[in-house]
Amino acid sequence: MTVSSSLHAQERAELAGWAQGLERSALQEMLVAASRPGIISFALGLPAVELFPAAALAEAAERVLSVDTSALQYSPPLQSLKQHVRELMKRRGVNCREEQIFLTAGAQQGMSLLSRLLLEPGGSVVTEELIYTGFQQVLAPFRPQVLTVSTDAETGMDVDAVEQCLSGGVRPKFIYAITDGHNPLSVRLHPSKRARLVELAERYRVPIIEDDAYGFLCYENPLPPLRALSERWVFYVGSFSKILAPALRVGWLVVPEELILPLSVIKESTDIDAAPLSQRIINAYLDTGQLPAQIDTLRTQYGLRRDVMLRALAENFPDAAGWTKPDCGFFVWVELPPTVDVDELFRSAIEDEHVAFIPGHAFSVNNKRPDTPSIRLNFSHPTAARIEEGIPRLARALKSVMG
Amino acid sequence: MTVSSSLHAQERAELAGWAQGLERSALQEMLVAASRPGIISFALGLPAVELFPAAALAEAAERVLSVDTSALQYSPPLQSLKQHVRELMKRRGVNCREEQIFLTAGAQQGMSLLSRLLLEPGGSVVTEELIYTGFQQVLAPFRPQVLTVSTDAETGMDVDAVEQCLSGGVRPKFIYAITDGHNPLSVRLHPSKRARLVELAERYRVPIIEDDAYGFLCYENPLPPLRALSERWVFYVGSFSKILAPALRVGWLVVPEELILPLSVIKESTDIDAAPLSQRIINAYLDTGQLPAQIDTLRTQYGLRRDVMLRALAENFPDAAGWTKPDCGFFVWVELPPTVDVDELFRSAIEDEHVAFIPGHAFSVNNKRPDTPSIRLNFSHPTAARIEEGIPRLARALKSVMG
Repeated sequence: MTVSSSLHAQERAELAGWAQGLERSALQEMLVAASRPGIISFALGLPAVELFPAAALAEAAERVLSVDTSALQYSPPLQSLKQHVRELMKRRGVNCREEQIFLTAGAQQGMSLLSRLLLEPGGSVVTEELIYTGFQQVLAPFRPQVLTVSTDAETGMDVDAVEQCLSGGVRPKFIYAITDGHNPLSVRLHPSKRARLVELAERYRVPIIEDDAYGFLCYENPLPPLRALSERWVFYVGSFSKILAPALRVGWLVVPEELILPLSVIKESTDIDAAPLSQRIINAYLDTGQLPAQIDTLRTQYGLRRDVMLRALAENFPDAAGWTKPDCGFFVWVELPPTVDVDELFRSAIEDEHVAFIPGHAFSVNNKRPDTPSIRLNFSHPTAARIEEGIPRLARALKSVMG
Repeated sequence: MTVSSSLHAQERAELAGWAQGLERSALQEMLVAASRPGIISFALGLPAVELFPAAALAEAAERVLSVDTSALQYSPPLQSLKQHVRELMKRRGVNCREEQIFLTAGAQQGMSLLSRLLLEPGGSVVTEELIYTGFQQVLAPFRPQVLTVSTDAETGMDVDAVEQCLSGGVRPKFIYAITDGHNPLSVRLHPSKRARLVELAERYRVPIIEDDAYGFLCYENPLPPLRALSERWVFYVGSFSKILAPALRVGWLVVPEELILPLSVIKESTDIDAAPLSQRIINAYLDTGQLPAQIDTLRTQYGLRRDVMLRALAENFPDAAGWTKPDCGFFVWVELPPTVDVDELFRSAIEDEHVAFIPGHAFSVNNKRPDTPSIRLNFSHPTAARIEEGIPRLARALKSVMG
């Protein structure tokens, strides 16, 4: 950076206004610290490498590349993969048609495309106060008015507050909801709130973008997503990243049919709306019928890791702390005594105990800190042994900052 | 579409203003017609399936998936692939550092990311009158003021006109240039104009987005791209789609180092800035050292197809028509007698002669028709035999519409 930082602004290209202040986020800085060798990380929301069906995916890739050279060519989105997604959505309790399915480069692209379709600079949207940071990045270029609502630790999004936002006269472009396996709060939306939220979306004609990245990984009592309740006002975002493998970069949307064309035009401008090789590899893997068993394996294994983490927390954390017992997803949300400085805890955990997490306030929309000091712990990536080693270390760091 | 078209607008989500009129383009409609069975197509800019190094890529995929399961995980952009790109750029006559290389999901994503970094709604840009339609799609959401300049059939972009745009007081956000293998005009920018264009970019501090999708496929006298002349004011867009295989969806940018961070933030919001599996497959293929020979093969084979097309045009087309002799790229640009209605020719070619092309006006920025009726012919995708069969057919269709 010596060359560039010595340059006068006049000697540089002028960036779009919203991009001029872009910096690596505090979250990303933390992740750099958390990736240092020897650190036990509960930070990122990564799936477990050892649970990837690597051999089966390698066989699928071999079949695709040996059978048909045109798998390497530009070609339309893969219809047979849409059929598989339709079957998969049935397992999730959703009936949809292939004509409502749009294939994407992962859930992140699905959210990005939907936002670009619906939002204009300065438009308004409704979200919870603490949400997935990747969705905040999607919103940033639009500099939208973000109407935030709180989240109840037991029942999820405050739907009364959503109604207040909608009844105030503003017509937000969409409501962003993480119904199951909430990231970061690890709560699920209560069934009665699901019905009411969809009813509000229909009444006020404001679509819901439903981020279901973790919805297939429910450890008990799976519930159908919002999309099961409304074909027209819920735009569903799904992904193979957590149930198969992230590096394949394949996800999907389920949306009203008339949105498929504009989405394909936007995707074409973004990265060409053609089937990448990875769509064919996933399709060949799904043809073998192994995915349901793979999902069962993941549920069992991640469920075990969750239990190990909950037990370790109970055995090591002080009574003044509290945490969720997630039904679904990759995270436990821990609330700490009000005197704890979470940033100080982060530094102590990394430096003294070599264990990492993400401070709760890193997920805050509008940079408001949560009332209670909180942290997000991931249990999907570390093994049970690492969890059993890491949580006592984290408890020691907590004890040290509590004085 | 019966369900959706019967819906009252109130019953639908409101789209962003720019997206409300989105329709399948005339170009896309034509492509549907051109893809009917039995049609010999000179329409799309596709590489030849039979020239893909399919076996070598299959072996690369197998090596990647058998060696390291973490190839399936989220992971940072692949540093070793950046090293390969640096070597590749040297073969193109460009010295750059790995810190200036940004990996993308193909050239299209490179252009999309750069435009989102540089452009704001209503900003102005400089382009030629006829350009790659994919770049026009990139611009659409910004509804920019597009300052157009003409293109000389022998020497390329009118650089005097570029200077007039820049000296008028407006500071456009960038100049879009296709230096070699111009799509659709198949011209290359004259060496003296290259130097002058870069000098203008530097003087007026307006960056050039250089689209070099075809630059490695020069059939004679390759010239270095604009990026060889300016490290600071030329933002280079490269791709593996034409030299390796499109379905891998990997390309790259070469930009000033300080743009890498904001680009990574924008890419993260778009599709997660992690190395997809396809980056690793390409990297493993490049490790074998086979790419230079593969590019030589493509140059030889596409050069032969170009020669077959030029000979067939000379033997079959009327004297009143003229066409380019491309040094580089995938296309021949044909100018027809002024009385020819190109849309009528298109219909006759498809319906009566079962042969397809793209009308020149489909590439027009601002929907201005070229003064001379023109068509774009692709010679990379059809085999020599299909070219020898298709050009006489097209000549018959032309004769029929000339009456």
